[in-house]
Amino acid sequence: MKNLFKLMKIEDFIEVAMSNMNKKLETEEIDIIDSLNRILSENVISDGDLPPFSRSTVDGYAVYSKDTYGASETLPIFLDIDGEIRMGEEATKKLKEGYAMKIATGAMIPEGSDSIVMVEDTEMISEKTVEISRAVYEKENIVFKGEDILKGGVLLNIGHKIRPQDIGALAGIGVTKVNVFKKVKVAVISTGDEIIDPSETPKLGQIRDINSYSVSSFALELGCEVKMCGIIKDNKDMLLNEVRNRIEDFDIVLLSGGSSVGTRDLTIQVLEQIQKDSILAHGIAIKPGKPTILSVINDTLIIGLPGHPASSIVVFNGVVKPLIKLMSGELAEINYDNKIVAKLSRNIVSDKGREQYFRVLVTKENDEFIAVPILGKSSLITTLVKANGLLKCGLGVEGIVKNTDVEVIMF
Amino acid sequence: MKNLFKLMKIEDFIEVAMSNMNKKLETEEIDIIDSLNRILSENVISDGDLPPFSRSTVDGYAVYSKDTYGASETLPIFLDIDGEIRMGEEATKKLKEGYAMKIATGAMIPEGSDSIVMVEDTEMISEKTVEISRAVYEKENIVFKGEDILKGGVLLNIGHKIRPQDIGALAGIGVTKVNVFKKVKVAVISTGDEIIDPSETPKLGQIRDINSYSVSSFALELGCEVKMCGIIKDNKDMLLNEVRNRIEDFDIVLLSGGSSVGTRDLTIQVLEQIQKDSILAHGIAIKPGKPTILSVINDTLIIGLPGHPASSIVVFNGVVKPLIKLMSGELAEINYDNKIVAKLSRNIVSDKGREQYFRVLVTKENDEFIAVPILGKSSLITTLVKANGLLKCGLGVEGIVKNTDVEVIMF
Repeated sequence: MKNLFKLMKIEDFIEVAMSNMNKKLETEEIDIIDSLNRILSENVISDGDLPPFSRSTVDGYAVYSKDTYGASETLPIFLDIDGEIRMGEEATKKLKEGYAMKIATGAMIPEGSDSIVMVEDTEMISEKTVEISRAVYEKENIVFKGEDILKGGVLLNIGHKIRPQDIGALAGIGVTKVNVFKKVKVAVISTGDEIIDPSETPKLGQIRDINSYSVSSFALELGCEVKMCGIIKDNKDMLLNEVRNRIEDFDIVLLSGGSSVGTRDLTIQVLEQIQKDSILAHGIAIKPGKPTILSVINDTLIIGLPGHPASSIVVFNGVVKPLIKLMSGELAEINYDNKIVAKLSRNIVSDKGREQYFRVLVTKENDEFIAVPILGKSSLITTLVKANGLLKCGLGVEGIVKNTDVEVIMF
Repeated sequence: MKNLFKLMKIEDFIEVAMSNMNKKLETEEIDIIDSLNRILSENVISDGDLPPFSRSTVDGYAVYSKDTYGASETLPIFLDIDGEIRMGEEATKKLKEGYAMKIATGAMIPEGSDSIVMVEDTEMISEKTVEISRAVYEKENIVFKGEDILKGGVLLNIGHKIRPQDIGALAGIGVTKVNVFKKVKVAVISTGDEIIDPSETPKLGQIRDINSYSVSSFALELGCEVKMCGIIKDNKDMLLNEVRNRIEDFDIVLLSGGSSVGTRDLTIQVLEQIQKDSILAHGIAIKPGKPTILSVINDTLIIGLPGHPASSIVVFNGVVKPLIKLMSGELAEINYDNKIVAKLSRNIVSDKGREQYFRVLVTKENDEFIAVPILGKSSLITTLVKANGLLKCGLGVEGIVKNTDVEVIMF
């Protein structure tokens, strides 16, 4: 029974999973207001200039800049006022040299004018005359036609994850619907004879389902479409039917719950029966979380998660999360995980043969972040409730000394 | 026309807003699977022990630890096997001294046994006898009844923002519904004669609505319930009716869009007409974003946002976001904003009279983060599309020198 597991490195696990899938990503068209955090499946190109005309960026007077040369508070110049450009209306009249037109922020620049004097630098002497106490240079206080984005310009690229400011920009160029990759579809199946639904009262020997709730919630947080499939007892035919059905309809099937050798063996039997030699890894170099199973059947990724709550969450964050990102179509150029650099509060000893994740609580003391390891068995979910981050010790690392600055992945 | 604005500091703005509201937060009961990122409105107390019985954390044999003393690979000991404890079943039979019972991970510990020998340290000699090659100490490989959480213990506190692992823990103690504070309700009203709906084609002088889309999306991202109320032209009666109606039903009314003095003046007139002296601030010491209006009427917060797209987003992130957090019921103990420390790529000069926000693009080069300021007028939305963070220069700061490590608020 020794060497039950041949441990696979995390990067190999991810590489093997991805290289065994060959699924074309599906797309859908959605309203921009529903597109937050979705991944663009096409480049978005502007079919017009933004702004569509040159606009004033201030309230003031449209002028010829050369007419203001030399103007100062002590030696102001005076210009005749030739009307006003109203908001939302076309500036139809050309500005004559030696004249000024009243203009509001955002209004259209009249033909001829090359700059705007701010209202703060003016004084209306009469209905017909304005005093100007500061010279303006050419192009001052104007945003030019197409300066934000030109017709034909790429606003956003394929693979971009849509943020609030992007939605504003899409609206600005008149794009009200976008094509995005469909959400990654995740089925979560609970297994294990001892597992019962949280709404039930456990008899002695039974335990409420924790992992499928935490794992489903992590997947929801990542923007997946998640189906909780309920609890399947350790019965080969039932599990086989359930897994086979879910493989049809989902991109990822997560088997969560029981962590005994019996449950694991059953999972392996079922996967091998659905497709021979479909087990790609059985055991991963991560701590906690060693007994993790990887399989790909019909381009669907199947991961058997370990049963201990903390192990299950560590494997989700260390392995499933990067796989979901890779499967989502996102080209992660400008999105970073939420990480905090904190001072480690005590020495920790790591298993150098595995990538070990410590649960830590990051707190702020006198403007400094402190990472306090939360110790406890990986079977305890409350260790993760007390924690707000994970600290990774890579392969080959034997430990970290107190007061070292460490990078914590927040969750 | 000089000194149009008396500028209020950001912290004063937030303090004045909060001290003029006295709204009791409403609550609702929801399913835990819908509770991600919601704020608990009550402490969650466990009404039972978790786990409800002592369990094995490994596959192996339940024993009396004293029966294994001295066992080693070279000098194993042998115990008689007295049956097996099956998953999900009560361990009804007491373990007799000198015997071992087969047990799976997660199964119930039989009475008498005080430790579990891992299967890796055993060899089944026959149906009746197991060889044990390593001694176990008392309590080894057992998670005890109530060790995760004791009956009556507080699992989560009021004001806690629910994370995926919390949902797992709630399921674990049989809590399938929780009471949370209702989402902060935000109405976004677009104003300005020049603003048209993004689906329309602008005539000369008109511009598509950008800000209400970006601002609504930021509010959605923060977990608010958001209503986009459409575009109201600069007509006093129409704006007055719209604002008055929204004050009834929403916690926050954001006025977004037009940035001309005319639109601003109209907003102020309307708010003063709904309730005299309700304008609490008019101008804020933030750059960009100075022309921001604050009002509270009937415990509803009303904020007139500046019209330039970048200003609008800076004010949302600098002022509205902290106000939403304060109004949400969240007690922010263990949640931090996503910030990255990066090296500034060039010198920047700041307005020391205002809290200035620079748009920056953070990139990773050779494991080091670099913050590149994105320069451009605050009227350009694409400067924010190119950026992925904001860099704050506080009041009194004149600038930051190239290569300084700066903290960037990511978005």
